[in-house]
Amino acid sequence: MRISELSSRSGVSTASIKYYTREGLLPAGERTGYNQTEYTDAHLQRLRLIRSLIDVGGLPVAAVARVLTAVDTPELPLGEVLGVAQHALPQAIAPPSAQAVQRAEAFVAEHGWHVHDGNPGLRAVAGVLDGWAGVGREDLVSVLPAYARAADIVAAADVDAVSAGIRAAAEGGDRDSAAQTVVVGTVLGDQLLAGLRRIAQEHAATQRYGLNPPTDRSTP
Amino acid sequence: MRISELSSRSGVSTASIKYYTREGLLPAGERTGYNQTEYTDAHLQRLRLIRSLIDVGGLPVAAVARVLTAVDTPELPLGEVLGVAQHALPQAIAPPSAQAVQRAEAFVAEHGWHVHDGNPGLRAVAGVLDGWAGVGREDLVSVLPAYARAADIVAAADVDAVSAGIRAAAEGGDRDSAAQTVVVGTVLGDQLLAGLRRIAQEHAATQRYGLNPPTDRSTP
Repeated sequence: MRISELSSRSGVSTASIKYYTREGLLPAGERTGYNQTEYTDAHLQRLRLIRSLIDVGGLPVAAVARVLTAVDTPELPLGEVLGVAQHALPQAIAPPSAQAVQRAEAFVAEHGWHVHDGNPGLRAVAGVLDGWAGVGREDLVSVLPAYARAADIVAAADVDAVSAGIRAAAEGGDRDSAAQTVVVGTVLGDQLLAGLRRIAQEHAATQRYGLNPPTDRSTP
Repeated sequence: MRISELSSRSGVSTASIKYYTREGLLPAGERTGYNQTEYTDAHLQRLRLIRSLIDVGGLPVAAVARVLTAVDTPELPLGEVLGVAQHALPQAIAPPSAQAVQRAEAFVAEHGWHVHDGNPGLRAVAGVLDGWAGVGREDLVSVLPAYARAADIVAAADVDAVSAGIRAAAEGGDRDSAAQTVVVGTVLGDQLLAGLRRIAQEHAATQRYGLNPPTDRSTP
């Protein structure tokens, strides 16, 4: 297909398509003549993956480039792809304090988790502990055990989904599809959880306090 | 204190302090003479709150302005402050498809949740469903029930933490502190959950597959 058809089928502007190609996110199309380039369904599928990671997952283009490089490296084991996808979590700008990192590590050990020092979650948790302390709300650490239980439930579902993807890949020989599952599952899973948390929060607050539902702010 | 001391104690540059004041995030200091402005501990505390929401919570400045306006409006009930904080979730750029919204609403009803149409979680969940469909991974809906269970656990802990804040506010008469708890708890809670999920994922994957921990990418 031509770039105009690729654009209309994907909903991505031709300018963005060219930009993603320059940045290495999208393979170049095949030159078939002067000022003519042919694209395939593989390009369309890749564009949809890129837009999911940017529009739904909220990743910056540079992070998308990193995870797609991992997907595109056939010799990279899926465990390593997961590591790259995990690191695509938008990181706090300021590094957390050493004290907060220690407290995060202590909590992780107490909960029975064993992870390596570079797990990006340790830094994220430490950043939140610093954030609470900065506004004098250290009492919020009371939520940690419940959040950790929830994280265990989610992680078990994540590993189940990835396992299913890996089994399908082993049967069909499609390692790329399994790598995509890892990336899409990890990145979009954060948004899914944040969304469901808002639904469950409103439900729980309404149950507990008999609050009226908040007014709808999404329509003027 | 002078702006230089406010800057060194908060770790926020004087340029950023002036920017936050212009944008209405930080109240102006008191002019005490030509080219001299005095700031108080309240300014320091507010700056720490702003930086938590930006650096740890990942909110854009415009979203911080909206949640702080809610915190600063004494007559706004805390249920409404929660609604504003919930809407600070970075939203997907493209609106989800009507079909995905219907599927999200059907899942929410099936799970026994009752929320109003404008709950921002519905849009987030629908966006993720679209993202999965776009890359041909509809099979990932298999994770929904586990994620919903996890969201219930987290929301119960959130409501407990907010209730404790509201009780403290009722006793001490400090409504602002309760409003801050709602905002900080909601916004930083997303990051906390994303961080713990990464820790739990690595732990679960290592247990299941006996994988070696991924190599540390945080140090060169």
